[in-house]
Amino acid sequence: MPTLDDVGRAAGVSRGTVSNVFNRPELVRPELRERVEAAARALGYGGPDPRGRLLKEGKFNAIGFMPPGAYPIAEVIRSPYGRELVLGAAQACDAAGATLSLVNGTDDTRIASIREALVDGFILGHSADIDLVSSAKRRRLPFVIVESDAGPDVNSIRTDGRKGALAVIRHLTGLGHRNFAILSIRRTAGPAIVHMPGETERALASGFALDHERLGGFADALAEAGLSIGRMPIIETTPGDPDAGAVVFDQCGDATAIVAMSDWQAITVLDEALRRGIHVPGTVSVTGFDGTAESARTTPPLTTVAQDIVGKGRMAAEMILANAPPRQVVMPVELVVRGSTARPHR
Amino acid sequence: MPTLDDVGRAAGVSRGTVSNVFNRPELVRPELRERVEAAARALGYGGPDPRGRLLKEGKFNAIGFMPPGAYPIAEVIRSPYGRELVLGAAQACDAAGATLSLVNGTDDTRIASIREALVDGFILGHSADIDLVSSAKRRRLPFVIVESDAGPDVNSIRTDGRKGALAVIRHLTGLGHRNFAILSIRRTAGPAIVHMPGETERALASGFALDHERLGGFADALAEAGLSIGRMPIIETTPGDPDAGAVVFDQCGDATAIVAMSDWQAITVLDEALRRGIHVPGTVSVTGFDGTAESARTTPPLTTVAQDIVGKGRMAAEMILANAPPRQVVMPVELVVRGSTARPHR
Repeated sequence: MPTLDDVGRAAGVSRGTVSNVFNRPELVRPELRERVEAAARALGYGGPDPRGRLLKEGKFNAIGFMPPGAYPIAEVIRSPYGRELVLGAAQACDAAGATLSLVNGTDDTRIASIREALVDGFILGHSADIDLVSSAKRRRLPFVIVESDAGPDVNSIRTDGRKGALAVIRHLTGLGHRNFAILSIRRTAGPAIVHMPGETERALASGFALDHERLGGFADALAEAGLSIGRMPIIETTPGDPDAGAVVFDQCGDATAIVAMSDWQAITVLDEALRRGIHVPGTVSVTGFDGTAESARTTPPLTTVAQDIVGKGRMAAEMILANAPPRQVVMPVELVVRGSTARPHR
Repeated sequence: MPTLDDVGRAAGVSRGTVSNVFNRPELVRPELRERVEAAARALGYGGPDPRGRLLKEGKFNAIGFMPPGAYPIAEVIRSPYGRELVLGAAQACDAAGATLSLVNGTDDTRIASIREALVDGFILGHSADIDLVSSAKRRRLPFVIVESDAGPDVNSIRTDGRKGALAVIRHLTGLGHRNFAILSIRRTAGPAIVHMPGETERALASGFALDHERLGGFADALAEAGLSIGRMPIIETTPGDPDAGAVVFDQCGDATAIVAMSDWQAITVLDEALRRGIHVPGTVSVTGFDGTAESARTTPPLTTVAQDIVGKGRMAAEMILANAPPRQVVMPVELVVRGSTARPHR
């Protein structure tokens, strides 16, 4: 491989000038720059190898972001929630001059991704998959778990899911609702999983600690109103599943309130209601969760449980960049009542 | 540094078993895995170094994406257009199992970023900054220029800006508009730059080939209707500038049609019109450019020049992944007439 010195000799300039052409071209006169570039081209010199810098500095100057579930990266960009989380992480990366690397989180590749990604730390969607955490630990990378508490040794930022779940059900039972359908989050790819009411406790087929926590909050708030979650259908869908609304209306005709664990699911329900001529909130009330920017712009605007998603993403990236002792943060939530909820009509 | 062999000896297992624990943990019995992990921890062995793989394979398995302008990466995620471009690139990365690295494109760092980013190729926002292209060329990385044609040796995908510009002005002059204000794109950070009508030709302070091409299209379509672009105010704003709408209404009170070079700018104008009680399209018509998903959801929905942005991002990433001979692609555009344009009221 040719070196800086070889290029300098061929172009009749010093090693320093060649280095400037590659590192600070604005310092070099255009005609000199062209001469050095021509010599470099003739010798096949491609500039300093970034892998050399890597070995020297041991830093990638990049943060990895893995989707909150076994989802591809495109799903994060499509998601109103994922997009705000990425936005916050991007703000922290911009402030630090770091790159934000979006890493695919689908089942086959996620462990290999953590092992191999060229990053200085990871924002991981959850602690449910312990292999992920131990992979990151093995690489001695700082990481942050979003949406689960993984103990005092691990950075985590989670939402106060229970408080949000209690608030949204209390709002709806306060309006007089007694028949609910619940949209829980399927954290793996695939179609809706429908759990119709039955005698026994129903386990979620997929779901993170946050989802179980919210289901518990729903159950307790329903019990306060003398209602049993055992009598309500629970449907697990991926947040971006375009058929979620159709499944809910086909399977849960009795529900006067549809309670979703994400704004994206609730927006899908609003879209389907519009297609079917079902009035919201006249015929059915719909609630979201997250308080995304999109939730304020729907027709009608969504009643939802708001949290500072951008702030959460920013904090996650800052925790990695700071590489300080582990912290466990619980993000506060707030019920935001808008036009998608009203008294039931029957 | 301890090696795989050291860990194997300490745990009483073969080198292959240690390798499996780190590379394919699902193949190893949990109790054996724990023993190996304990030995690795005790020895301070962190697993195979991804930098070793790098040097061996010479591939990063990642694509770099730099914003279309001197913008931070957060601005791309906030932008309705940038987000769809990233979505398309993410879809191609998902299909190829590659990481998508968002690289800050602000002035001070962009050349260093291209030199140093740990990627196998780059999607660059434009060819205006020739230093960027030559940096990428020097690294012998495949790259794609989005929004400019950089000649037959370079991959490029650009929008048919002229055709879109002609179509939108012809639509408005056909409705009877004769007083326009033009929102051009400021490609650097900073407040609005206002060019009020004057005798002489006005040069954009910042702007890519695409922006000049569209301005030329606006001028020619205005001339067809006997109008001169020299009599119209031109305002350069960054697409996400929240004050763009205020500047337009403060400075261009005579305009009955506001023509923006991006949907994001047009949405800002709609927001400001709502705040000021100015009716769109009753008092003023507003047009966008790009055909983002957001443009269909505004009140009123935007008349805009639509293109397949997601397809453009996907194609850009696929060009890099294919590393085939350079191609130059022009994306077709189509005028989409919606509720934000009508006959002028005076």
